[in-house]
Amino acid sequence: MENKNRPEWVPENADKGFATNIMRGVEGGHDGMESSQPITNFRAGARKGYSLDEIVDGILKNDRVILARAITLVESNAPKHIEKAQQILNRILPYTGNSLRIGITGVPGAGKSTFIEALGSFLCNKGHRVAVLAVDPSSSITGGSILGDKTRMEKLSRDKRAFIRPSPSGGTLGGVNRKTRETMLLCEAAGYDVILIETIGVGQSEVVVRSMVDLFALLVLTGAGDELQGMKKGVMELADLIIVNKADGDNEQKAMVAKDEYNRIVHYLRPATEGWQTKALTCSAYYEKGIDRIWEEMQNFEKNTKASGVFQKRRASQIKDWIYSMIKDELEQKFFNHPQVKKVLPEIEKEVVEGRQPVTQAVQYLFEQYEKRE
Amino acid sequence: MENKNRPEWVPENADKGFATNIMRGVEGGHDGMESSQPITNFRAGARKGYSLDEIVDGILKNDRVILARAITLVESNAPKHIEKAQQILNRILPYTGNSLRIGITGVPGAGKSTFIEALGSFLCNKGHRVAVLAVDPSSSITGGSILGDKTRMEKLSRDKRAFIRPSPSGGTLGGVNRKTRETMLLCEAAGYDVILIETIGVGQSEVVVRSMVDLFALLVLTGAGDELQGMKKGVMELADLIIVNKADGDNEQKAMVAKDEYNRIVHYLRPATEGWQTKALTCSAYYEKGIDRIWEEMQNFEKNTKASGVFQKRRASQIKDWIYSMIKDELEQKFFNHPQVKKVLPEIEKEVVEGRQPVTQAVQYLFEQYEKRE
Repeated sequence: MENKNRPEWVPENADKGFATNIMRGVEGGHDGMESSQPITNFRAGARKGYSLDEIVDGILKNDRVILARAITLVESNAPKHIEKAQQILNRILPYTGNSLRIGITGVPGAGKSTFIEALGSFLCNKGHRVAVLAVDPSSSITGGSILGDKTRMEKLSRDKRAFIRPSPSGGTLGGVNRKTRETMLLCEAAGYDVILIETIGVGQSEVVVRSMVDLFALLVLTGAGDELQGMKKGVMELADLIIVNKADGDNEQKAMVAKDEYNRIVHYLRPATEGWQTKALTCSAYYEKGIDRIWEEMQNFEKNTKASGVFQKRRASQIKDWIYSMIKDELEQKFFNHPQVKKVLPEIEKEVVEGRQPVTQAVQYLFEQYEKRE
Repeated sequence: MENKNRPEWVPENADKGFATNIMRGVEGGHDGMESSQPITNFRAGARKGYSLDEIVDGILKNDRVILARAITLVESNAPKHIEKAQQILNRILPYTGNSLRIGITGVPGAGKSTFIEALGSFLCNKGHRVAVLAVDPSSSITGGSILGDKTRMEKLSRDKRAFIRPSPSGGTLGGVNRKTRETMLLCEAAGYDVILIETIGVGQSEVVVRSMVDLFALLVLTGAGDELQGMKKGVMELADLIIVNKADGDNEQKAMVAKDEYNRIVHYLRPATEGWQTKALTCSAYYEKGIDRIWEEMQNFEKNTKASGVFQKRRASQIKDWIYSMIKDELEQKFFNHPQVKKVLPEIEKEVVEGRQPVTQAVQYLFEQYEKRE
């Protein structure tokens, strides 16, 4: 069945490298698990129900409709869907991990969408398959969502070699975190070998994105000094690459100056990645200038960190950290949503802040309330 | 009974300002709570047992022996002692909060002890009463403890206007955190109006100290560039003052250059405290030069932040954060010390890292184990 189901848009060289391995994984047959129960109605509306086998097969053959449905399942908060999603993840796990995971953040107005579109198109033209995801914890509050407006990346969203998925909505940053990580795994199993994860930097979202990617890039504009005043504390210290965008026309000279200034500043910071000196580069995402140089630097990063073992070490520690952060989120959810805790917490907090009760005693009391199980 | 019990070493002007208020609190009588049960044997050995009233009285009159015993009680992990400690804290709470809380960290070799001794002696001579505490999460592992070797601060430790307490040993950073905060409250109730909290910066200890002080100072040496390479990521962004120490002899000129360089760098960082531009200064702690200038800047900081309300706002949010961090610590302790979780965790972690099990499923399984209550 080789290539029988390979969509015609997959370029010839997609068979080289990781994509091939993934396809071979499929050819090698599944694990023979019995799993013929159909998964139906996992989204509102009467859609065709797929069996677990069909979903797993569909993902591994990059059936975009099935991939999108699997992601919807992963994003669902319903216990039934979570169980199905875990079955799928269990099966596709051996086909994951073979991408370069790149996080992208930036100050407002730095041109993140334009940059992602330029980089994504450049990579597709070089034969890569690119998935674009987003972490935006604010979307659950505002109802909006980054990447939600596909016209923001018009060209890339029409490119069949790219897969764009808006930020999952609903839930805490912990929930968005889980959903994005699992979506990334599904995309990897579907053969996407470059994953771009965008964040607009609300709350701790840069730290969360940094914790799931191999390389983290920060998009900035000219005027480093002033820019930095508006930049969130500590974000620069997460970055492996600092990209000064809009280096075009009258702005080009200023962008070069800003780049030099950033290169000076990063010298004073501990590198985000062991053994890699953070570098500043310029580009013009709008005119698609400098994108090749940025990709070259990203490949250097991958090559160096893989040679030193830092890449592999970070992946292993990321997955451990993920376990621990999921456990912590879950523990806190349970505690702070406990009806009795919810009821007494505001008053207790007030008493402590006003100096009418010591903290340790207040916390002890809260735990007594918590242990009164419903 | 005014001043009847005031030890002869308290300088005349200690009656001005906070110390007086605290003493008056005592004179005004207690709240009439019944609390005559004696607290005995709270430390190994046969010591005199004090009643709750005696301990509270002793603290408020700055009886150093009783203060030290109360701290030992606060540092104890025994449930019986925790309960007694909470009773004491409950009673002294109205007399706390009236100090300037200063955190001090620094790169190894920067001369933290010499600096604290110089600043502490300077302040005592100006009529202040100074308590020196430490946060050192490593002391529980190494058995050592900062400030443990009193000869490091020989002069200050002989000064009766100063109170030096080594880092509490045992337990997690969360435990050390609680003990240090509660010790700080006891010292405030005893009339110490400047609290210096030292940390050697293991793990997240700077963040923990930052979360309990009003002002955070970072001690560095000359050669900013090289220094910073050895400095922990993000520490500079916590600092309100950067103090270039050892500005003496041949080193003085270099220290001035370093100071200017730090002043340039902090311009690129978001200020640690709203409305306060972090400043770099020089001093020679060994020759006690520049200490007056540093204290002046510390007082400016206090004056400015109190006028803007940032000081009070930070205190309120620190106490709220403390509640939440204690709850989180407690939740994690309970989870990770659960016998069944402890038993299965290493194998589960291994399976996940090796890609044999999805994270969400692993976490679900761990919670099933956890919910099997003993």
